[in-house]
Amino acid sequence: MTQTKRGPYKNGIVRRRQILDKAVEVFGTYGYLAGSLRQIAAEVGVTPAALARHFDSKEDLLVEVLRYWENDNAHRTAGAEPTGVAALRDLTDLMEYHLRHRGFLQLFLTLGVEATNPDHPARQFIVERYASTREGFAKRIQDAIDAGELMPLPPEQVQSEARLLIAALDGFELQWLLDPDFDLVSEVDRFIEATIRRLEGTPRLPVDK
Amino acid sequence: MTQTKRGPYKNGIVRRRQILDKAVEVFGTYGYLAGSLRQIAAEVGVTPAALARHFDSKEDLLVEVLRYWENDNAHRTAGAEPTGVAALRDLTDLMEYHLRHRGFLQLFLTLGVEATNPDHPARQFIVERYASTREGFAKRIQDAIDAGELMPLPPEQVQSEARLLIAALDGFELQWLLDPDFDLVSEVDRFIEATIRRLEGTPRLPVDK
Repeated sequence: MTQTKRGPYKNGIVRRRQILDKAVEVFGTYGYLAGSLRQIAAEVGVTPAALARHFDSKEDLLVEVLRYWENDNAHRTAGAEPTGVAALRDLTDLMEYHLRHRGFLQLFLTLGVEATNPDHPARQFIVERYASTREGFAKRIQDAIDAGELMPLPPEQVQSEARLLIAALDGFELQWLLDPDFDLVSEVDRFIEATIRRLEGTPRLPVDK
Repeated sequence: MTQTKRGPYKNGIVRRRQILDKAVEVFGTYGYLAGSLRQIAAEVGVTPAALARHFDSKEDLLVEVLRYWENDNAHRTAGAEPTGVAALRDLTDLMEYHLRHRGFLQLFLTLGVEATNPDHPARQFIVERYASTREGFAKRIQDAIDAGELMPLPPEQVQSEARLLIAALDGFELQWLLDPDFDLVSEVDRFIEATIRRLEGTPRLPVDK
């Protein structure tokens, strides 16, 4: 009895996960506005009515996709967190994660650009996510300053450096999405190292051999 | 006779221009994929059939929007071009241009992200535009090196610096589109000055008072 009940329940979880994975792909490829529930249902191989049993509306599906993505990200950063300059160098690991999760990255940039429209349903999520990322990056820089690894900077310059980190990473990620031959990890590594040397006050940028 | 002929012809040009302006806005706000000819026609105040007399298809309208945008950009950069480090500093002027043409900027970023989908009709345009922008930025850096304003760098590092400039500008622009209070021009100015000092080999980042 328990087993016959568990079967369909487990199938429901699997199906729900399939829909979420496909939604990441479809919204990431076509945008949330242009992506349709009909297409997601068709690609999963269910009817729109079956999809509606899992998600009430397109917006409900979007909310669940964002929750799914945050859980996945939380999982990624579980464990011992590096601090100070090592935490800045750790951003290349984030890029390696993106290389393995192109759909999430494409979705995030797509929603980021779509959310420049104030009426977009992901607007608040995106704005809050940028703010929390900025605070997180600023904290990494301030910790490195406090540890004596970087030279002291006034708080507003720490904020500027955090904004530059976000800007450069977003831009490099877009270049990689447009050109898979672009070496995202190396380019970000080079940028982070140049940033660390600049903020250490190291006199010269070493020239590659 | 000439005048009665010119009237409708001139009206046609005005109407065409109205449609292009509205298309920049609608595609910029909702994306090319989600933006519809129906909505553009309605917002201009013409029927879809009247719009079809000016543009054969949605893709035709997109092509004309991109041509319109390039002409506008070409106009912007007419006149004496600065060279070397002054040409890098001139990028803050480009940001001021963006502040006055939010629609074009939003359209460009929207198409850039949408075009990460290889089947997107603006794909080739966007990929070529990134390549030509990269070459243009690399030339500015190389000219500054040749003029003795920046320290010598191997060609692949010049390319990396050009990619970083594009990445940071794209990313800062996105931050401004998401938050109009973000001071795009000051933040880009600060980044460009820090880049110049880094590439000059200047020992320290001056700290703001």
